[in-house]
Amino acid sequence: MQIGIAAHSSPVNAKVESMVREFLRELRASCPQATLLLGGYWGLMKFVVDEALKLNFTVVVVLPVERYDVELPQGVIRIDTGAEFRSRSVVLVRSSDVLVALGGGAGTMIEVLMAYAMGKPVYVLTDTGLSSDALQRAFPDYIDDRRVVRIRYFNDPIKMAREVCREAPRAVKISFG
Amino acid sequence: MQIGIAAHSSPVNAKVESMVREFLRELRASCPQATLLLGGYWGLMKFVVDEALKLNFTVVVVLPVERYDVELPQGVIRIDTGAEFRSRSVVLVRSSDVLVALGGGAGTMIEVLMAYAMGKPVYVLTDTGLSSDALQRAFPDYIDDRRVVRIRYFNDPIKMAREVCREAPRAVKISFG
Amino acid sequence: MQIGIAAHSSPVNAKVESMVREFLRELRASCPQATLLLGGYWGLMKFVVDEALKLNFTVVVVLPVERYDVELPQGVIRIDTGAEFRSRSVVLVRSSDVLVALGGGAGTMIEVLMAYAMGKPVYVLTDTGLSSDALQRAFPDYIDDRRVVRIRYFNDPIKMAREVCREAPRAVKISFG
Amino acid sequence: MQIGIAAHSSPVNAKVESMVREFLRELRASCPQATLLLGGYWGLMKFVVDEALKLNFTVVVVLPVERYDVELPQGVIRIDTGAEFRSRSVVLVRSSDVLVALGGGAGTMIEVLMAYAMGKPVYVLTDTGLSSDALQRAFPDYIDDRRVVRIRYFNDPIKMAREVCREAPRAVKISFG
Repeated sequence: MQIGIAAHSSPVNAKVESMVREFLRELRASCPQATLLLGGYWGLMKFVVDEALKLNFTVVVVLPVERYDVELPQGVIRIDTGAEFRSRSVVLVRSSDVLVALGGGAGTMIEVLMAYAMGKPVYVLTDTGLSSDALQRAFPDYIDDRRVVRIRYFNDPIKMAREVCREAPRAVKISFG
Repeated sequence: MQIGIAAHSSPVNAKVESMVREFLRELRASCPQATLLLGGYWGLMKFVVDEALKLNFTVVVVLPVERYDVELPQGVIRIDTGAEFRSRSVVLVRSSDVLVALGGGAGTMIEVLMAYAMGKPVYVLTDTGLSSDALQRAFPDYIDDRRVVRIRYFNDPIKMAREVCREAPRAVKISFG
Repeated sequence: MQIGIAAHSSPVNAKVESMVREFLRELRASCPQATLLLGGYWGLMKFVVDEALKLNFTVVVVLPVERYDVELPQGVIRIDTGAEFRSRSVVLVRSSDVLVALGGGAGTMIEVLMAYAMGKPVYVLTDTGLSSDALQRAFPDYIDDRRVVRIRYFNDPIKMAREVCREAPRAVKISFG
Repeated sequence: MQIGIAAHSSPVNAKVESMVREFLRELRASCPQATLLLGGYWGLMKFVVDEALKLNFTVVVVLPVERYDVELPQGVIRIDTGAEFRSRSVVLVRSSDVLVALGGGAGTMIEVLMAYAMGKPVYVLTDTGLSSDALQRAFPDYIDDRRVVRIRYFNDPIKMAREVCREAPRAVKISFG
């Protein structure tokens, strides 16, 4: 299973970092075979990559052309899309069986909407204090009236990790149906 | 000036069609040199293209790879991106000096968020009864706390057209600054 | 008809400029409705754009992300792909009913091979003294054993323009068949 | 080190399969840490993926949008670019520290020219009986007069594998210089 992670391009506060750490540990316990895909190696994305490597996840970083030359830690698989930020997000989201948004700004929200439009299961961490918390108020269930997939919101990162591992493999079959 | 139009991929009700017609007529009067860019030739997008051609606008249709073979009316410039729906939207939005959202679903909202993230002026028609009306409630001013550009909402299509033509040429300079 | 022009990213000698001028004049006479697509506004591509504008062609410039901010002359339609050089070439070639290579380096040759692989009619100007002259020796007829489309080589730019205008509209139907 | 493999989209004869097997075994012996990137899972590309998995290589398959739903073997990392064949090749080549062409048609040759244009080290297997054998005659040293990187041709797959592993890490530094 390939899990795409949408996360802030800037560093975040300690509370979110702590939630992210809990999420990753539970993910490691519940679906140890998962490969994680991130859209860069800076901000919260860098924090996720570093924590995931400590937990021995396979990690793929899907880089936009604007940052193709960022240095990645040993062992990370590098995809250099040659495409600007938003087009790089398309590669990230399409390559993911499910998308998990751990908090961020417009880029993170764009990836959530893209995943929805592609029919991928989407999980959003709330109560982060970041701009993406607005998604739950704006779109409590679905993004539009096509009702493609229900957006799942969680303020408990451990519960979210368990749901991702429990439901995702089943959902994948739908999303490519 | 190149004006990107985000619009529903399905047909819409007569009220929205009427608002769109008013918008285009006023646009033709206020900035007759504008070139219009659309992301397809179906649904509301087709309606916009057909009306724009009647008004003698230059029209560019930026096609996703899934619909590369759609037939376009004589005189329309066809860009075949070879890229799936969301990546095609990147080409559309980046090629636009301003983005105008005339109402739609997730695809339209993604284009609004992309334009914001790229620092382009964004104008959104409201009171359409379509899913994109949710944007104003969710993001009354800015999409995230970077406050890149203020989203401008209008329920009056004529006023919106005038604002697009009055402010856009100035804004362009900012967006590439 | 949309005619893609593959041309050198550097300036070329006076002989090639003269051949290009002849080609464009004859093209204007033989298929005045043609829209020309170029991949940039520098080197020989800039020369072609400037000459084409003098002849009142509609011109579209399809920009790579690395050069998104190049200034274009008034009246040119700008497509900002957000994609690096080679991916931008895909948009250029796919958007063209036929591809004409007026001489260049690796980029020009890549576009010729792309057009072949997409099944588009391809016309190559020879005797330019540029690297792309190697194509005729390497691939006198077809690029590979699938024999998708025969590459047409011309050392006479006027004859080439006439052939483009005579055969292209017919060929288009095949290439999307 | 990430090694991109350009290979035919159709099955090939037993001689080439045998050369490919020798290449991969030597590669496994000489640079066991290498990750292999392929552009699909059909034709010779499928053969390479299957052999590489037997040798316990990490394998990434970079899919074009036209074939996004091809089933991959367990353990392979899937990148779904959402981009058509040639744009997918850009992601493949840009993500590779070096490109190795094992024989093919226009698609393989396009990837060789792309790698050259990006300044990546390129290794081409010759005497395959496939269309890509034409490259050596056409471009014995360089693709164009910019002389970006010298194309390296080998009819001995074992020697080629050793050279890839010996020179590539050094070359990478140049290609992003």
